[in-house]
Amino acid sequence: MKAFVHVALKKSVLDPQGKAIQAALAKRGHRGIGDVRQGKCFELQLDPSLSREAAAQEVERVAREVLTNPVIEEYSVRWEG
Amino acid sequence: MKAFVHVALKKSVLDPQGKAIQAALAKRGHRGIGDVRQGKCFELQLDPSLSREAAAQEVERVAREVLTNPVIEEYSVRWEG
Repeated sequence: MKAFVHVALKKSVLDPQGKAIQAALAKRGHRGIGDVRQGKCFELQLDPSLSREAAAQEVERVAREVLTNPVIEEYSVRWEG
Repeated sequence: MKAFVHVALKKSVLDPQGKAIQAALAKRGHRGIGDVRQGKCFELQLDPSLSREAAAQEVERVAREVLTNPVIEEYSVRWEG
């Protein structure tokens, strides 16, 4: 069982790194790409002995308390397997 | 139309950042989490006038040529909208 936690800056927070990538892409001739935002992604391997609910709780806790800065970031969780 | 490009270190490449997070989580008492790997995630907003195929080609090119270091990283693309 694997969880992917995607952490990104809130929409209301300016993302200068994304803007720099966007400008670099435009300069290289990639005209079809508009807004770019960069985030982090964490791939967490869960203990297979955990139940689905316990695993989901654990991942939510880790995402909220450790991986995300709630002032400027938000997270989403995606499951695999 | 939005594309998410997820860039991660190849499985064969050591991920010290992921290992550090894993150790920190274990120390904090999160026992259910095993292996951790950290990657980057790019959210690309595509020009709505592009066809689905043209957009997919553009994103593949950007992911391969700009966002990923093919020596140590691999990427995957996910679509939304």
